[in-house]
Amino acid sequence: MSTNPSLKFLRSLHQRKQREEQGLFLVQGRKLVNELRASSLIIDSYHATSEVAKELGLVDARIHPPHDLERMGTLEQGNEVIAVVRTPAALPPRAPHGHELVLALDGISDPGNLGTLLRIADWFGVEQVWCSLDCVEAYNPKCVQASMGSLFRSSVRYGELPLAIMDAVGANAEVYKAEASGENVFNTELKRPAVLVLGSESHGLRDAVKHGPGRSISVPRFGSAESLNVAAAAAALCMEFARRKN
Amino acid sequence: MSTNPSLKFLRSLHQRKQREEQGLFLVQGRKLVNELRASSLIIDSYHATSEVAKELGLVDARIHPPHDLERMGTLEQGNEVIAVVRTPAALPPRAPHGHELVLALDGISDPGNLGTLLRIADWFGVEQVWCSLDCVEAYNPKCVQASMGSLFRSSVRYGELPLAIMDAVGANAEVYKAEASGENVFNTELKRPAVLVLGSESHGLRDAVKHGPGRSISVPRFGSAESLNVAAAAAALCMEFARRKN
Repeated sequence: MSTNPSLKFLRSLHQRKQREEQGLFLVQGRKLVNELRASSLIIDSYHATSEVAKELGLVDARIHPPHDLERMGTLEQGNEVIAVVRTPAALPPRAPHGHELVLALDGISDPGNLGTLLRIADWFGVEQVWCSLDCVEAYNPKCVQASMGSLFRSSVRYGELPLAIMDAVGANAEVYKAEASGENVFNTELKRPAVLVLGSESHGLRDAVKHGPGRSISVPRFGSAESLNVAAAAAALCMEFARRKN
Repeated sequence: MSTNPSLKFLRSLHQRKQREEQGLFLVQGRKLVNELRASSLIIDSYHATSEVAKELGLVDARIHPPHDLERMGTLEQGNEVIAVVRTPAALPPRAPHGHELVLALDGISDPGNLGTLLRIADWFGVEQVWCSLDCVEAYNPKCVQASMGSLFRSSVRYGELPLAIMDAVGANAEVYKAEASGENVFNTELKRPAVLVLGSESHGLRDAVKHGPGRSISVPRFGSAESLNVAAAAAALCMEFARRKN
């Protein structure tokens, strides 16, 4: 048994409950730690092998043997450096204005999907990502890693989606709901500010969103697949929103 | 130790070498097995619990206890029915003609990514998916599952990508290479027949493809993400190809 006092602490942060209680989350691997250092997030501590601490110039890193770091992290590879980071203050959804676009996610339960969606939103310059309260937590290690650093720049906001959408409508934003049965987006006028709502693959949009305000749109299908995964649908629709902005 | 004679056989098909030697692969779970039955693929055998065999009407299924099926399959959930399927004959890349679009994949090593790409290609009616010889095998269980049945309909063809591209050029097809440094696709004339080439996230396009014929195009970036994952880039670019077809 290792007696490394950091081991228990970092391993506790593998669990959502502990992350939320402590207000901390983990960022793992050279590439992501470098992205983190370029962000405005507050770092609680670094944990690394002596080689990697030296390589990255982490003068205040706590040095651990590789086999302890392996157990501290959640990755199969890339555990040679781990940062413990303060979770930024949670902000509620804010109605978009001007030319802003919001991506609103309803019940996304897979952390890899959420991370990929944050990365797509970041690429296309989406101003806010709204998550329904039953979406997976954005500070889940799999989401952090899949976002490839976009989480550090994103404005991810959790809230009651039907209420946030009503607020946006009150502020004169347009609402577009991605649904297989929706109108071909190529034929839809896309106005801004806008909220683009996407549901989970398995459950689609919840009733209060489905039957709420907004226009149903779809990525036109030219082949035989029954559905697109949520990240592919988001990329295709963000592409179309971007195109109309040009 | 179980003495179930199917156990060793199905477990051997978890390995690429055995799948290739036997010319067989696995399809797992109710949803995918149903999609499989609607396809033209030849099924070697079904393995299921008695309940699921009855539910799906698989009269010739071999019945196993759930704990054996769990070990026969690769999934965490959904091993209650497994089909052993004959791998269709391998076809070489064929130069596209008319209005055909080919998705050409260079060095995609993640089976989940390849499956998602097959699904995107299927959605957008892409006629062929070409894979470089170092792409992951399409009959990898993770790829089969991520393709959500699109593998059963797809025309996935492995070959030397630079040669296939030269062939396509000889047949008057246009070649478009997705690269971060490429021209904004919104400003690019997209002609058909066409080959759209995408590289792996970690290594990009190999030199022989990068420096070969074709026009470099990119998904325009409006935010700060360093890159898009390959499936998101494929979805965005297929969307633009689909739009121009309209």
